[in-house]
Amino acid sequence: MKKNVLIIGAGGVAQVAAYKAAMHNDVLGDINIASRTLSKVEALVAGILDKKALKRPGVLAAHELDALDVEATKALIRRTKSQIVLNAGSAFLNMSVLRACLDTGAAYIDTAIHEDPTKVCEQPPWYGNYEWKHRDECERKGVTAILGAGFDPGVVNAYAALAATAWFDRVDSIDIIDVNAGSHGRYFATNFDPEINFREFTGTVWSWQQGQWTANKMFEVNRTDDLPVVGTQTTYLTGHDEVHSLSANLNVPDIRFWMGFGDHYINVFTVLNSLGLLSEQPVTTAEGVEVVPLKVVKAVLPDPVSLAPDYTGKTFIGDLVRGVRDGVESELLIYNIADHEEAFAETNSQAISYTAGVPAIAAALLIAKGEWDCHRMANIEELPPVPFIDLLGRIGLTTRVRDAAGDRAFNAAEFRERAAHRDERLRGA
Amino acid sequence: MKKNVLIIGAGGVAQVAAYKAAMHNDVLGDINIASRTLSKVEALVAGILDKKALKRPGVLAAHELDALDVEATKALIRRTKSQIVLNAGSAFLNMSVLRACLDTGAAYIDTAIHEDPTKVCEQPPWYGNYEWKHRDECERKGVTAILGAGFDPGVVNAYAALAATAWFDRVDSIDIIDVNAGSHGRYFATNFDPEINFREFTGTVWSWQQGQWTANKMFEVNRTDDLPVVGTQTTYLTGHDEVHSLSANLNVPDIRFWMGFGDHYINVFTVLNSLGLLSEQPVTTAEGVEVVPLKVVKAVLPDPVSLAPDYTGKTFIGDLVRGVRDGVESELLIYNIADHEEAFAETNSQAISYTAGVPAIAAALLIAKGEWDCHRMANIEELPPVPFIDLLGRIGLTTRVRDAAGDRAFNAAEFRERAAHRDERLRGA
Repeated sequence: MKKNVLIIGAGGVAQVAAYKAAMHNDVLGDINIASRTLSKVEALVAGILDKKALKRPGVLAAHELDALDVEATKALIRRTKSQIVLNAGSAFLNMSVLRACLDTGAAYIDTAIHEDPTKVCEQPPWYGNYEWKHRDECERKGVTAILGAGFDPGVVNAYAALAATAWFDRVDSIDIIDVNAGSHGRYFATNFDPEINFREFTGTVWSWQQGQWTANKMFEVNRTDDLPVVGTQTTYLTGHDEVHSLSANLNVPDIRFWMGFGDHYINVFTVLNSLGLLSEQPVTTAEGVEVVPLKVVKAVLPDPVSLAPDYTGKTFIGDLVRGVRDGVESELLIYNIADHEEAFAETNSQAISYTAGVPAIAAALLIAKGEWDCHRMANIEELPPVPFIDLLGRIGLTTRVRDAAGDRAFNAAEFRERAAHRDERLRGA
Repeated sequence: MKKNVLIIGAGGVAQVAAYKAAMHNDVLGDINIASRTLSKVEALVAGILDKKALKRPGVLAAHELDALDVEATKALIRRTKSQIVLNAGSAFLNMSVLRACLDTGAAYIDTAIHEDPTKVCEQPPWYGNYEWKHRDECERKGVTAILGAGFDPGVVNAYAALAATAWFDRVDSIDIIDVNAGSHGRYFATNFDPEINFREFTGTVWSWQQGQWTANKMFEVNRTDDLPVVGTQTTYLTGHDEVHSLSANLNVPDIRFWMGFGDHYINVFTVLNSLGLLSEQPVTTAEGVEVVPLKVVKAVLPDPVSLAPDYTGKTFIGDLVRGVRDGVESELLIYNIADHEEAFAETNSQAISYTAGVPAIAAALLIAKGEWDCHRMANIEELPPVPFIDLLGRIGLTTRVRDAAGDRAFNAAEFRERAAHRDERLRGA
């Protein structure tokens, strides 16, 4: 059942995915990594070999690929006999990589929603603008396509599904909270591609409230929570991928995403955004050079990959779910804590790349094992959550829960039990 | 004695100069305006004609010119029979325009020190790096070249000369203070070319203290003064052109330049500068576009010319001079107040362009009249100050003085009298 994997990208997430794939090449097969810049993939491969991360002897190869070129991507999939393709590169590539998978029959995985470089924060639901247009073709061809298989989107969708299908009898609200309480020691840097990072915040903040799309501006709405390990944190209502699929797939009236920002980040962001320097629309200099301001900002900022060696502290990502359980209004916090230094020791990457890259490989492993090889297009919440969360706990990302009974490690059996008896419980209610 | 004038530039300062030249075309002659972008100069000429600003019927013509092209500039000087050339365009053009004047014999005027686009805040004195290398050739050829004939540098140099040669017997310190207490109503904008504006603040702040060059960082040293009209203002030690000639031409131990900044300006500047977005060194985007970040910042900021219609409030620029007069330690504040709305009503420009453009035309008028046609290279403090300050008072920029005896209009006779008896006074002392 070994399946060869092609990983596209050479940034932080691709690096973590490549390490984790290498560490599980007994379940996966050949591991091929491809990016626009060959030297970056070669360095990545050399790092993995240096660290002796391959579980058993096997193929680990670097390739140069412009993944916007569908024919070149198809040729590489065929040449490497890849059965699983993970786009861990730019979100601008999703649709061309998906096309290559649909044409070759390879399973498709990504970790972030497709974006058109010329547009920002389009009409919701975002998945309807690109990915879901290919749902019928996936079904018809029996191609497995797993969307948003990072942490957020990704694991937080599985947490939401677990809460809705097992823990609660009725879910009233899901608040996904993402806090990086780590420190990179630079004046300012983004933790992943600045272009994708800033694009999340420059347009309308869409949230799902009272069963409908609600529009806000960035930094307009915030909340403060006392969270495990990272303590009291202020987070801001932010538009994010998972809200656009959870709102369609779960019958929950309020689904919101909250991201933590320090005052310094907000100040730098506000200055750049107010000046127009985060725009994706080109400007022309007095000398006649046409350039997209956001791409210039990206060029002057630290390469997110370069932050990893100095990164300290922890990240918190979780779902705060409110609803009715056994007839009682109650709350469940289901979350992960990751550590920047531990992530670096294992994969040469900081925890933000780590939390996005590990789940993508968990998804690949579940496809290889057949559990998630669904032969259709699926967002994470449409797939069985317990095997995913359980596997993640074994390959580097542990889950904890906090409710009225206290804070404890995730116990798969407890959730399986609740899920198994859900129907009779609801009939009884 | 009419002398044809060629004005290079189409920004705010060039516009003010063109209006003022038109208003005095009985003393000057044909007025030709040239810039890289013909449409801008044509619009400028159309505005002057609309406002019927020409004092008497005469030539007012627009030309397209790349003033870095010395041969093209010489050809235009000859074709238009220009005897005075004012570079009111970019400070990057000074040396090529000066070369064209040296080769054709036309008098040269500029309003800011020459800059090399690839360098910032070079070794002091700045004039020694470029302008003063041509001093001998000016002298030999009898070409008049007047450097830094705006307000600062320019009028503040004349104020300093007046204080040193007439008011005081010994000057101990000159603090030039520049405050814009006006408001343009935008999130952020610079009042003249952002490229030149920011370049003033990104490198070493050079000041002349205790008879030697002193290096500081921007925003490291500040002072707070109670100033006429604009009230209590905090200003910051800033590197500026005039310090580099006054330190050589006047025997004064402390010469400093102070510029007013609001907290918002400082915050935006600090963010942009810390990120590297004010760098004059090119960066390359991930897509391979090579571009200078500062030029992109310039492209996204409001065109300074566009601020003028909405600008309200006043500017203060003056010299606070301390020294010994008639044996007594005393202080003289000599200054101008300009009004943004009045400047716009007269010249379609705000007061910052107005205060820089009017003195340049005063210099041209004094050359045309012979009083300043010195047939050599001179900074403003080397030329008779009283006729200049007196003329400025009649064409739009009035001077006031404040000392122990109070605040009053500048009285040319009072200063002439002091200057005339300086030698016998110093002999008596």
